[in-house]
Amino acid sequence: MSKTNPGNFFEDFSIGQVIDHATPRTVTEGDRAVYGSLYPTRFAVPSSAAFAASVGLDPHPVEELVGFHIAFGKTVPDISLNAVANLGYAECRFVRPVVPGDTLRTSSTVIGLKENSNGKSGVVYVRSTATNQHDEVAIEWARWVMVHKRDREAAAPATVIPELVKALKPSDLVLPPGLDFTSYDFGAAGETHRFDDYAVGEKIDHVDGVTLTDPEHMLATRLWQNTAKVHFNTQARPDGRRLVYGGHIISLARALSFNGLANAQFIAAINAGAHAAPAFADDTIYAWSEVLDKAETDVPSVGALRLRLVATRDRDESMTLRGEDGKYAPGVLLDLDVWALIPR
Amino acid sequence: MSKTNPGNFFEDFSIGQVIDHATPRTVTEGDRAVYGSLYPTRFAVPSSAAFAASVGLDPHPVEELVGFHIAFGKTVPDISLNAVANLGYAECRFVRPVVPGDTLRTSSTVIGLKENSNGKSGVVYVRSTATNQHDEVAIEWARWVMVHKRDREAAAPATVIPELVKALKPSDLVLPPGLDFTSYDFGAAGETHRFDDYAVGEKIDHVDGVTLTDPEHMLATRLWQNTAKVHFNTQARPDGRRLVYGGHIISLARALSFNGLANAQFIAAINAGAHAAPAFADDTIYAWSEVLDKAETDVPSVGALRLRLVATRDRDESMTLRGEDGKYAPGVLLDLDVWALIPR
Amino acid sequence: MSKTNPGNFFEDFSIGQVIDHATPRTVTEGDRAVYGSLYPTRFAVPSSAAFAASVGLDPHPVEELVGFHIAFGKTVPDISLNAVANLGYAECRFVRPVVPGDTLRTSSTVIGLKENSNGKSGVVYVRSTATNQHDEVAIEWARWVMVHKRDREAAAPATVIPELVKALKPSDLVLPPGLDFTSYDFGAAGETHRFDDYAVGEKIDHVDGVTLTDPEHMLATRLWQNTAKVHFNTQARPDGRRLVYGGHIISLARALSFNGLANAQFIAAINAGAHAAPAFADDTIYAWSEVLDKAETDVPSVGALRLRLVATRDRDESMTLRGEDGKYAPGVLLDLDVWALIPR
Repeated sequence: MSKTNPGNFFEDFSIGQVIDHATPRTVTEGDRAVYGSLYPTRFAVPSSAAFAASVGLDPHPVEELVGFHIAFGKTVPDISLNAVANLGYAECRFVRPVVPGDTLRTSSTVIGLKENSNGKSGVVYVRSTATNQHDEVAIEWARWVMVHKRDREAAAPATVIPELVKALKPSDLVLPPGLDFTSYDFGAAGETHRFDDYAVGEKIDHVDGVTLTDPEHMLATRLWQNTAKVHFNTQARPDGRRLVYGGHIISLARALSFNGLANAQFIAAINAGAHAAPAFADDTIYAWSEVLDKAETDVPSVGALRLRLVATRDRDESMTLRGEDGKYAPGVLLDLDVWALIPR
Repeated sequence: MSKTNPGNFFEDFSIGQVIDHATPRTVTEGDRAVYGSLYPTRFAVPSSAAFAASVGLDPHPVEELVGFHIAFGKTVPDISLNAVANLGYAECRFVRPVVPGDTLRTSSTVIGLKENSNGKSGVVYVRSTATNQHDEVAIEWARWVMVHKRDREAAAPATVIPELVKALKPSDLVLPPGLDFTSYDFGAAGETHRFDDYAVGEKIDHVDGVTLTDPEHMLATRLWQNTAKVHFNTQARPDGRRLVYGGHIISLARALSFNGLANAQFIAAINAGAHAAPAFADDTIYAWSEVLDKAETDVPSVGALRLRLVATRDRDESMTLRGEDGKYAPGVLLDLDVWALIPR
Repeated sequence: MSKTNPGNFFEDFSIGQVIDHATPRTVTEGDRAVYGSLYPTRFAVPSSAAFAASVGLDPHPVEELVGFHIAFGKTVPDISLNAVANLGYAECRFVRPVVPGDTLRTSSTVIGLKENSNGKSGVVYVRSTATNQHDEVAIEWARWVMVHKRDREAAAPATVIPELVKALKPSDLVLPPGLDFTSYDFGAAGETHRFDDYAVGEKIDHVDGVTLTDPEHMLATRLWQNTAKVHFNTQARPDGRRLVYGGHIISLARALSFNGLANAQFIAAINAGAHAAPAFADDTIYAWSEVLDKAETDVPSVGALRLRLVATRDRDESMTLRGEDGKYAPGVLLDLDVWALIPR
């Protein structure tokens, strides 16, 4: 029998199946530095230990997406090595900040299965949980992915489609323990806009753009120990191009959103996410946001903004998400729906 | 009103104006590693904690330019986002070594203004100071930059051109507290040449060259949270090329200067600096130095060399700074005048 | 006299000569992160401090090749700056794990010399030892390299060819102090295969491939402070291409070997190594392994596998090392013979 991992195919999954993913990973200050070299991020909390301490966070957390990409990367060899496409995310909560020295592990449970009518593939829904070395939950999320069948003749499983909420309720959000924006230094953070300055329906063009290169997205994707071949190997796709890991676009869009949302310091939740189109080297990526909702939290100084964060290929000053046909507009790459925490 | 930062234009600056720049940044061992992957640096003090301790420096400082680029990067969104060109540096002193765990902030004061006769732009002179989390000054410098006007009709300010010294006096230099080269290990440092081995007027061809790539200079520039669009976005310039951040060339030249100046362990001051020409991917960068002056310091084992560090596109074994017309020779990219500390 | 280092030429070496190499280098958590961004490595011990502690290793060692490349890089300016080719390695032992905070130095002794019949170059054999800040040996190895003569007329030295064993005996291996695989968590490590599951003669195709880029191998090679011009400067070779540092291929092949050898957690020794052909950007690198031998160790839970690790340009599912002419098959880039430690 071969000793290498062929990954799981659609017929290998069953409802209720629990998969403890391999390769626990310790987060370090090195990850913060490499992340900072890959993305133009300037949020004051992950940038400055002194600023983080001033809002109640000591030790110094890394950016939420550092934890997310590491935790997500663990699932790839078991869940999506034979994926056709990563279809969506839901119900992602950042439950506990990740700090250097934390070791993350991820476990997933299969919560849904639906074979496609073509008999060649199916959709697998999993709920994943990342825990630290103290067995505390750090991050949890659901995602669904289209996976090839190994054998077209394999019997289709009973269809189970999990109920996933369209957006987490504000009361579902978990604030970082100790977080308090009472003494928040807006000057140090880079912008004066606070919770009350944002209105539901408001759109923000984040203005800046970054042109992608292959080495950069590979450095990022490896940092997360994501093993999907299409990101690294020009022989893995007919077009000879390397597909950019979707998480690279998420981090890039989040970093670009600093310009206009500098005080949206934390992502508390990802309500939904879709990679609308693939990205490749030489694409220039821009981002815009729309305020979808606003809510108070248990901490009086902390508000929550529900934001749609959209990444586009080339700049779209009209900030159009969908065409008249209801489909994503041509340049849209990412449509991410998040709850972010901001000073009131 | 737009929530994004348009940067300041020439008419937004006024003499005496103080700007506290955003995004404090904590320096980590990760920065040292990323810096070491970007530049061929081998100076023994920043390379080795044990060597640093042997010359009186514990904790282990990062290279002076790590602190400089971080501190400088903070000023970009406020000072030079709408810059035509970065014209020069002066009176830069490294007052206190930066060590991992330090959080740097930068503040600038406008010390000079001069509108250009074309009415489209003007020169802004600022003096900037980087402080650590203990409010101790780490680095201070002046620079001047040509900045676009937003409105050509805006009234010209009174012209104020600050007096900046051509070079700091040796007595102005601040040595790292505790520095003592008495037990300096020349074998470990890589060369035998000490203070007495260098003569004023001597030129040193540093021999080695490095061919630039886009991903590398972008990784560096992001690490410093420098947000100038032209470094990252191929759509930001008519020629579709990414302009290399001038600081990338400074660090590269400094690293290349190891070969011939391995014992010039610290940059104590930058007396003057000019980016004579832009650099782009595929340019091959070389460096040469000229000894401009020599001086004793308060510490008997420590001498100071005033050095002109020149970076060139392609190698110029003749080490020619200027042509007969007094202009920089065609390949010259950088002309940097520094005081460096070296064992006597 | 020139102040720059011209490197040593063949006639500069003499039997018994000891060279203490420059630039001690402190290893940090930053190196672990950068390494993880450059290579698709997922071995559980270097990835997770918690996993490492569970097998008796606390503090958390970095990957053996991190130490090797750093220690090796120190030797380049003195041994191989004027090398024609790096011919081979032997008798390399990893004597003590390298952990963040360790400062490595390297010293070499010339153990063999043989001038080539063409009178233009010769082979230099050195034995090198890397020690940490406590003067404990961390790594030791022999290598031989073909070096140019400065002066063709220089007299040939007496030929001395050292006796180097073809492979270290299992009893020569030094296990990391404290290592105990009794409580080894195969689920966390990523594969179930243990010592008894591997048979001598078995070959494993590691399946995955990575397409090289110039920025990535330069970042790696600089991280090790390796100064050989051909890796960085397109003007240093007639073909205008950057030669990939052989160690980059070693690390890449080792990382790819995770898929099939996930539990071969440590490289305890490199018995032999040859770079069969050069590698360049755009080459896609694959790896396969052959089990050459198996042995018990002093620790009952720890077995040793002797493995041939082969890197190839393009995938060779036939896993052919040599053609009928006895020469390396066309795609073979690296032939590395190692002892690796694996749970029994």
